[in-house]
Amino acid sequence: MKVISKCLSFLILFLLQGYSIFSQVKMVERWGVFEWSKRVAPIGNPFTDVRVHGIFTMGNKSDTVPGFYDGDGVFRIRYMPGTPGIWTFRTMSDMPALNGSSGRFNCISPSTGNHGMVKVNPPHQFKYEDGKPCHPFGTTLYSWTHQGDSLEHITLKTLSRTPFNKVRMCIFPKRYDWCENEPVFYPYVRKPSPAGTFAWDYTRFDPAFFQHLEQRIIELGKMGVEADLILFHPYDKGHWGFDRMDHAANITYLRYVMARLSAYRNVWWSVANEFDLVKTKQLWEWDSYVDLLHKEDPYGHLISVHHSMEYYDVRRPGITHASIQNGSLVENFGRAGTLRDVYGKPVIYDEVGYEGNTPRRWGNLKAEELVHHHWQGILAGTYVTHGETYLDPNDVIWWARGGVLKGQSPERIGFLRRMIDTTGTFDYIDKWRNDHVSISSDRRHILIYFGREQPAAWKFELPAKTGLPDGTRFRAEVIDSWAMTKAAIPAVFRLKKSGDYTIEDADGADIPLGGKPYLAILLTRVD
Amino acid sequence: MKVISKCLSFLILFLLQGYSIFSQVKMVERWGVFEWSKRVAPIGNPFTDVRVHGIFTMGNKSDTVPGFYDGDGVFRIRYMPGTPGIWTFRTMSDMPALNGSSGRFNCISPSTGNHGMVKVNPPHQFKYEDGKPCHPFGTTLYSWTHQGDSLEHITLKTLSRTPFNKVRMCIFPKRYDWCENEPVFYPYVRKPSPAGTFAWDYTRFDPAFFQHLEQRIIELGKMGVEADLILFHPYDKGHWGFDRMDHAANITYLRYVMARLSAYRNVWWSVANEFDLVKTKQLWEWDSYVDLLHKEDPYGHLISVHHSMEYYDVRRPGITHASIQNGSLVENFGRAGTLRDVYGKPVIYDEVGYEGNTPRRWGNLKAEELVHHHWQGILAGTYVTHGETYLDPNDVIWWARGGVLKGQSPERIGFLRRMIDTTGTFDYIDKWRNDHVSISSDRRHILIYFGREQPAAWKFELPAKTGLPDGTRFRAEVIDSWAMTKAAIPAVFRLKKSGDYTIEDADGADIPLGGKPYLAILLTRVD
Repeated sequence: MKVISKCLSFLILFLLQGYSIFSQVKMVERWGVFEWSKRVAPIGNPFTDVRVHGIFTMGNKSDTVPGFYDGDGVFRIRYMPGTPGIWTFRTMSDMPALNGSSGRFNCISPSTGNHGMVKVNPPHQFKYEDGKPCHPFGTTLYSWTHQGDSLEHITLKTLSRTPFNKVRMCIFPKRYDWCENEPVFYPYVRKPSPAGTFAWDYTRFDPAFFQHLEQRIIELGKMGVEADLILFHPYDKGHWGFDRMDHAANITYLRYVMARLSAYRNVWWSVANEFDLVKTKQLWEWDSYVDLLHKEDPYGHLISVHHSMEYYDVRRPGITHASIQNGSLVENFGRAGTLRDVYGKPVIYDEVGYEGNTPRRWGNLKAEELVHHHWQGILAGTYVTHGETYLDPNDVIWWARGGVLKGQSPERIGFLRRMIDTTGTFDYIDKWRNDHVSISSDRRHILIYFGREQPAAWKFELPAKTGLPDGTRFRAEVIDSWAMTKAAIPAVFRLKKSGDYTIEDADGADIPLGGKPYLAILLTRVD
Repeated sequence: MKVISKCLSFLILFLLQGYSIFSQVKMVERWGVFEWSKRVAPIGNPFTDVRVHGIFTMGNKSDTVPGFYDGDGVFRIRYMPGTPGIWTFRTMSDMPALNGSSGRFNCISPSTGNHGMVKVNPPHQFKYEDGKPCHPFGTTLYSWTHQGDSLEHITLKTLSRTPFNKVRMCIFPKRYDWCENEPVFYPYVRKPSPAGTFAWDYTRFDPAFFQHLEQRIIELGKMGVEADLILFHPYDKGHWGFDRMDHAANITYLRYVMARLSAYRNVWWSVANEFDLVKTKQLWEWDSYVDLLHKEDPYGHLISVHHSMEYYDVRRPGITHASIQNGSLVENFGRAGTLRDVYGKPVIYDEVGYEGNTPRRWGNLKAEELVHHHWQGILAGTYVTHGETYLDPNDVIWWARGGVLKGQSPERIGFLRRMIDTTGTFDYIDKWRNDHVSISSDRRHILIYFGREQPAAWKFELPAKTGLPDGTRFRAEVIDSWAMTKAAIPAVFRLKKSGDYTIEDADGADIPLGGKPYLAILLTRVD
């Protein structure tokens, strides 16, 4: 009897656990992508005539996310789980064949290098969802995903050797100087039209275009690179017409993009590049696209609107950070911090001119200048984005099409990034004066940057607003931002208040410098 | 019969016109003040228990404005008519003795010097209601109306000899360094309190305080000076307690101030000085005061919120312009225009440091620096406000208490103002570069300012963005902004495009300069 009872217990236990053993509950890492799909006989226009959603539930937490049609009768629902544990889901659709599917998956710990989405760390910084600080050092590759596998693979390989962890990239193809080739894929299919005429069907996407794009986004993600996806841009001017779709088509497009791509953690929404140069759209339309993304993106990816001459209202709810075009504001001291203070949000100078040699002034910065711009941005608690525009016999210019990098700035930007990864970000100690002097958020580091000046020495004098008590001790390193060297000074400096507005070294020390441009001093507290 | 008929006609005509002949219809100039008043036996607390309004009508135009209690049983209603012609009015009150009064007045042409209120001329400028441009060249006299007649008359006399057409002034008395005297009048009366205790009755204003204040506003108005009235400020810290009245008391105060003062055309509402230093108020309170003024001021006077370290959201509806504290932004080239472009509203740098010799760094600018700040502001299409803080044996410092001016900047600011009154305002030709070069709104003048640089000559080269065609001719004057001289160059220069980004003089001319600081060149088109 005891034996039978024991056998029965095992049997019950086996049956209870059986489902998980034999149905192989799928494992999905936290902030990874779970995907459900089903092939059905499509009806009507499956892009617009069918609604399908997934409802994902764990405990009392529940998310409803839209699915999308991926061609060949296949519908998909993607979900990025943010909480570890067993999730269940069921589908809901006005098409009976898609309605009422259900299942579950196990959300496990994230793999190495997966820190979740980037979010704002108020007021002016970014961090990943696991709490790791994110310092966006971006580059510009507007049309790199429209170039075909061969060049795109080269671009990815180049990227993997750079310090860049964010890429500004357009969804729609781009037609502009040095980038006039047709893309491999188009986002829409053609309308059946009379011979000799041509029109896109803005209600029917081409899944191949988006499958290709998301492959690229996944590859960036594996490298820890954020895809700052530009949803609209002006570099079309009617050639394809993606800059002049009507409002309804734009909304359909944005919803399709969100349904397909928002489950990828490394996606940022850049609603436009140079929104004010898209002459076919009014301000209310941009506002409505911001509002739509803000309301309907299930995960709260970062949202910005990049501009040319007119600033977009960065204080608008939904806008997470400023994406600024302005080289002048990082050209010299005392300029870069203003926008950050006004907006109360992080600022990324996403366009400040590019290292290169084109005849255009925005595309012929010397490497020294672009590196200097990055230091100016960092000094003010903001970020600067790289771009490269060296002319090429085949017009393969990094900024537009990708390929290889030829410039001298990426290595120096990497040197700066490594410093910031160690010290954390900086902010002006004293907004009204001492534009050269910033303090790290943990108040353990002070950065003094000299830009194009060539001082022989720096008198150890800080703004009293550091608020650090007399006797606080610092070590110093002299940094050559161009040569990428750090030289430790063999001395310890002790703070002593020397006036209403100044703190000095107690012994009145100077720190000798080489009389060269682009030097900095990094002070680090000694405990 | 004919004679009788004629007599009758005259009689009818006489009766018809009689009213206007014998009742002496009051004449009120356009943008002047019509005042109705009535003495009644007051009931309860006449400040809070009685509501009285005037309804002013002409044709299908009608304005309803609040009245106020002015002590001694007298209620008043003030109205500033904006349209010439015959206005009728009637009163409306929950106190029968104040209800149903009526009458009319004739709004006639404004007298010389009356141009109406100052309004925004979008996006970045100001103009009076009659269309005349307004260039605010303000000064700072925070507590001048709390000093007693003798000093206040000296202040008015001094002001009349300056170029200043706007005064920043606090309604509530100010207690701060070098300004610790008690005011002559207080805005409230005391509560009946037990001996040894003291409390203001925030429901009962002292009419004498406000009668005095409005007399000063009227006197400024006669001189063409705008009263930029600071409604709240932090320079109290509980000494009187006007910085820590509760929200209801603040609303009562703002409504009383609007009822009394909004009929004066030269009133601006500065909701706060250094709002973020008033530690007793939350942001939502400031927002609500802006909203109240915006909604209830019948005339739409200018509204701003001045700050210290935190920027107020100037894009908020109701805020007409930015009132900025920041010396750094006018210290050097390329800084002052950013806020203007971001806000899309006019910017006045209302606090950039003061000419003086106090130990405080905000109060020890050299005159050269403050004048330079004004030129930097003008170059960027913004305005800068003057202040003076020379120490005085009796602590009569202009910036706080008024009196006489001792500095060297006002005369130079006057020199700049006269230029702007002739040329109109300027704006950067090219936001990204050429920070030294601005063009007037009518595109007839180009201003090149050199600041502290001391060039021997200026190569005649302008940004291509002027958009002016080849052959356009200019005359030039060399301006010494410190010596206040203008020297005409005996030559005519002809534009010729010389590159993608540059226009030069067709003959490649240079303009010689003296190698001194603070020089400028003014180019004026020759037709």
